[in-house]
Amino acid sequence: SDREVLDDISHRRFNPLRGSWILVSPHRAKRPWQGQEETPSKMSLPAFDSSCYLCPGNTRAAGGTTPAYSGTFVFVNDYSAVKEDQPDYVQPRSGGWTQGLTTGVIPTDKSSLLLQVAGVRGKCYVICFSPSHNLTLADMPAEMIAPIIKTWTALYTSHLPKSSPYYRAPAAELGITAPRDQYTYMQIFENKGAAMGCSNPHPHGQVWTTTSVPEEPSLEIRNMKEYKRKHGTGLLKDYVDLEIAKMERVVALNDYFAALCPWWAVWPFETMIVCRREVRSLPELTEEERAGLAGIISIVTKKYDNLFETNFPYSMGIHQAPLDGDPEDCEACHLHLHFVPPLLRSATVKKFLVGYELMAEPQRDITPEQAAERLRNLRGDEVYRGN
Amino acid sequence: SDREVLDDISHRRFNPLRGSWILVSPHRAKRPWQGQEETPSKMSLPAFDSSCYLCPGNTRAAGGTTPAYSGTFVFVNDYSAVKEDQPDYVQPRSGGWTQGLTTGVIPTDKSSLLLQVAGVRGKCYVICFSPSHNLTLADMPAEMIAPIIKTWTALYTSHLPKSSPYYRAPAAELGITAPRDQYTYMQIFENKGAAMGCSNPHPHGQVWTTTSVPEEPSLEIRNMKEYKRKHGTGLLKDYVDLEIAKMERVVALNDYFAALCPWWAVWPFETMIVCRREVRSLPELTEEERAGLAGIISIVTKKYDNLFETNFPYSMGIHQAPLDGDPEDCEACHLHLHFVPPLLRSATVKKFLVGYELMAEPQRDITPEQAAERLRNLRGDEVYRGN
Ligand SMILES: O=P(O)(O)O[C@H]1O[C@H](CO)[C@@H](O)[C@H](O)[C@H]1O
Ligand SMILES: O=P(O)(O)O[C@H]1O[C@H](CO)[C@@H](O)[C@H](O)[C@H]1O
Repeated sequence: SDREVLDDISHRRFNPLRGSWILVSPHRAKRPWQGQEETPSKMSLPAFDSSCYLCPGNTRAAGGTTPAYSGTFVFVNDYSAVKEDQPDYVQPRSGGWTQGLTTGVIPTDKSSLLLQVAGVRGKCYVICFSPSHNLTLADMPAEMIAPIIKTWTALYTSHLPKSSPYYRAPAAELGITAPRDQYTYMQIFENKGAAMGCSNPHPHGQVWTTTSVPEEPSLEIRNMKEYKRKHGTGLLKDYVDLEIAKMERVVALNDYFAALCPWWAVWPFETMIVCRREVRSLPELTEEERAGLAGIISIVTKKYDNLFETNFPYSMGIHQAPLDGDPEDCEACHLHLHFVPPLLRSATVKKFLVGYELMAEPQRDITPEQAAERLRNLRGDEVYRGN
Repeated sequence: SDREVLDDISHRRFNPLRGSWILVSPHRAKRPWQGQEETPSKMSLPAFDSSCYLCPGNTRAAGGTTPAYSGTFVFVNDYSAVKEDQPDYVQPRSGGWTQGLTTGVIPTDKSSLLLQVAGVRGKCYVICFSPSHNLTLADMPAEMIAPIIKTWTALYTSHLPKSSPYYRAPAAELGITAPRDQYTYMQIFENKGAAMGCSNPHPHGQVWTTTSVPEEPSLEIRNMKEYKRKHGTGLLKDYVDLEIAKMERVVALNDYFAALCPWWAVWPFETMIVCRREVRSLPELTEEERAGLAGIISIVTKKYDNLFETNFPYSMGIHQAPLDGDPEDCEACHLHLHFVPPLLRSATVKKFLVGYELMAEPQRDITPEQAAERLRNLRGDEVYRGN
């Protein structure tokens, strides 16, 4: 069969969402590994850590205090990558220089062509998922994840333009003030584990919202919009239907969401959670759909932890419609989540996306079908905690 | 000045080579770091290690023997990501199924649209830079680097189509057989250090050559070609002239090459080495230019080691014209090298390009001008070896 052929030859696969190719080298998983090993994160942590700035009642590095909270807790990042308050910046069209040191006169328009810059304002939030220091998403049943989705949704709706049918003023329990600007995009994400640059095991995610639509979502939107124009249907709607029909790459499935290793996955155990209905953003989900999303997040994260019997590191991001912008752009969006986990062989051996991957093309060592099969066969209802 | 404004506000910069934006948050370097720390590699290694499969006379993991060699040594990677020998694969245009499990009939053309695949053949080489186990490029004077460039060049010319004016049959001392296929692209790269997925400190690089032009170079070629069509000049020629005129991001300079932190750098101390003449590929370099390239590689790698007084990890890649293909594509190419090093603050603290970077947009914490200033002020003639 096709599957058997592709399990054995190097080949490229196309990612229609990004419009880019990846290299798959299935035979390469056999090579020995003598390189760097990760330190797996501790499996048993206390429920409260007095030195953790996200535990209720503790003081944060920049001075604020984390209040006693139950459920989720949102605050503005003390070290935000983008800020609400900064001077406006418009790139000067002609530079202060025209005379080159060694090459003579440089036309100033080449400068504004090659050195393009634009100011960005925005707001960065941290969301604690639980007051318990030692509960990751994988430790939570769906009922504990649903309130986190509600908090993500409330953050999103409170940043929509007031004219949007989904706009909601920030509720008091959200603890945030109305944004000063009309931002155009909100990126919700989670970095989990030291291998993914996370410095605190306390369960938390981040939200960065900006005056510009960032590179990745704008690439995806461009491709989804073009697909819709050409075929009259949604790219991710067609794709999720196709995967559910094939059941080769699906990892978990319920009535509302599918979790799968995409055909074009880059990271060894990368997955995507896709809404089965063509929904653009979180506030459009029905109560049942939200429960379905919570359920499938709970299953995927548990399967991840069970794969190498470790606290599985990953970065997760939610892609949905921009807050504001061209209606055709928003119309083309289809709510989905990406999980990119670095581990390849065990709790300590990750895949390095380095020289060839950075300079030439992303390369993977096992097929997405092989990854999906392993994840599919693992328990998603309970996490094995050996140590 | 403009430079002062940009040192203090978050902003986006445009990369005209990739056609993509990055986010710069200069104020963010101030935040404390409590996350993962790298293990710096050992500064003192023996000149010969009997357990190293790249040291002369030793046996390799897959069984071959590394001969006694002086200078450089090339062999076919025992665990190649792409192979010369594999069955041809053409994607079947209609799948073996049409009946969806849960959604009814799926048009088969959606399947070939969303699950695109193509076979790739190729050849992967390893190049030992020196028989000495403990000499990195940073330890080598320019005169020791020039022969490595000659080896890269010979590998490239022996893979060109026989009709090319630069084609040379592989010389006996290269120790390789003529490639079986006409490959279209050759990626020369080096992963240095455990933090960049390298499992052996013996100085070596890699070459992967394939039947397809990979994603990154094809993106760059597309943008360089379009620039040339529009402006009649070369993108990188204009850019290198502009940078030499400004001298704000230049790190090292000689008559033939410039090393600089590009305006659009993603990694904290990312640099690019650009040929000052519009040269498409290695064999077009004159003897003097090759010496100039060797000289500037020696300086940049020494500066890197001096930055945090450590064996500085990085991935390096050479971008040049494809081996074969559309003449306009080849014509648009301009020889350059990228160095992407992960360290941010010290020998042990790297920048993690994770959640936001993977899901939304690459983000950096210091400006390229700040990085260039630090690198410029470091010695490039000698490496400090404290321990
Ligand atoms: O070929 P190596 O050195 O064994 O492997 C290293 O470089 C390759 C090419 O960038 C990557 O695919 C691997 O993940 C990395 O560990
Ligand atoms: O914001 P944190 O968790 O301190 O930082 C982490 O996530 C950020 C967003 O992906 C990255 O820019 C940082 O490099 C990473 O260490």
